[in-house]
Amino acid sequence: MVKTPNIYCLVSGAAEGNTRLNAFDNALLEAGVGDTNLMRMSSICPPGAVETNIKDITLPKGGLIPLAYATIDSQTPQMWIASAIAVGIPEDPSEPGVIMEFEDHTRLEYVETIVKQMVVDAFDYRKRALKEIKTVGIEHQVKKCGSTFAAAVLWYK
Amino acid sequence: MVKTPNIYCLVSGAAEGNTRLNAFDNALLEAGVGDTNLMRMSSICPPGAVETNIKDITLPKGGLIPLAYATIDSQTPQMWIASAIAVGIPEDPSEPGVIMEFEDHTRLEYVETIVKQMVVDAFDYRKRALKEIKTVGIEHQVKKCGSTFAAAVLWYK
Amino acid sequence: MVKTPNIYCLVSGAAEGNTRLNAFDNALLEAGVGDTNLMRMSSICPPGAVETNIKDITLPKGGLIPLAYATIDSQTPQMWIASAIAVGIPEDPSEPGVIMEFEDHTRLEYVETIVKQMVVDAFDYRKRALKEIKTVGIEHQVKKCGSTFAAAVLWYK
Repeated sequence: MVKTPNIYCLVSGAAEGNTRLNAFDNALLEAGVGDTNLMRMSSICPPGAVETNIKDITLPKGGLIPLAYATIDSQTPQMWIASAIAVGIPEDPSEPGVIMEFEDHTRLEYVETIVKQMVVDAFDYRKRALKEIKTVGIEHQVKKCGSTFAAAVLWYK
Repeated sequence: MVKTPNIYCLVSGAAEGNTRLNAFDNALLEAGVGDTNLMRMSSICPPGAVETNIKDITLPKGGLIPLAYATIDSQTPQMWIASAIAVGIPEDPSEPGVIMEFEDHTRLEYVETIVKQMVVDAFDYRKRALKEIKTVGIEHQVKKCGSTFAAAVLWYK
Repeated sequence: MVKTPNIYCLVSGAAEGNTRLNAFDNALLEAGVGDTNLMRMSSICPPGAVETNIKDITLPKGGLIPLAYATIDSQTPQMWIASAIAVGIPEDPSEPGVIMEFEDHTRLEYVETIVKQMVVDAFDYRKRALKEIKTVGIEHQVKKCGSTFAAAVLWYK
């Protein structure tokens, strides 16, 4: 079995590209997690995991990196796109946190409002006391083919 | 490399939520696999893996858990949604089993009929003798925003 | 954490099936990676990873295998579908390569042209010197329900 991660990094990026996948690839590079192999998961923050700046760790090039992310792209010039992540931190540090993702063809302010409420709902359903919500998000106005990406990367220290 | 799992648990859950992702998150909790980081994979039951009740194991909170799953959600009130998993167990225990997933906007009976036939087809194509099919599934009639989830969780004992 | 893979295998397959998932499952078997648990990732070739023929390694049955893949299916008789992968190998072997995926309802020649250009773009954006592009792809004319699959499987030697 794979060891449970003990740190998390909130990152975001946006970029243009000639194809949807290139725009996404470029957004990953802007977010500081390009050149890794991202493995998407459903989206819990392990108990006691410590928030860490992505610049303070070195992800192995081509390494297998678990993460939760929001992403959206568009090829409609002028359109706004936005992606955001919210992490709910529990009062009790022995309990896990919850990561929520949301993205839409709109401005970031709306997307962040929704994703925060999603975390509140997730804690309500669990009857778990919520200490704090951390968010990261990004918006982008499409030129030709744009992508936004916001993530909670899980890793080890 | 990651060790090949040696047990599997069949689980299912359904729930309402204020968003599609919240409904899915709640369905995971109902299924007993909430508060973990689910990593979706294409869908083989390792040779000799033993069926285990999810209540008899403890998944690490926030741990990285491989699984195969079916899921569907809907925001159309009154609509039925259903998800099912079928696991084909081979006659020869040194061979792998096959896990199939199916989901649709309909009742569970239909979805289970399809997913069982998918396993039969998968064994036919492999020319592998099929001993038994195990299924798990769930249906739900949508109130406002509902989700169903059925899975084969792979883990270690 | 999971060890970073050090080999990669380029594989492809196409098949018919009675459902979309069965056609995909059969295409995996044709590609030589059926009977494993494929875990899809975003798509970097680790530095120094060595190309290896899938026939020269033994993937564990039911094992958890990281890979990048393109896939497309169709249930429209006569329609052509095609999937291709391209791997860009850098001049500097200490740098990672980039894997791009593309698929469409068309012939392979077009899909391969696009996916190669995607690799060129990815190296341009990184300002990384490109030594060589390797591709693998497959096309298929649908009878009833067909699927194509092309992948870079990452593994260990």
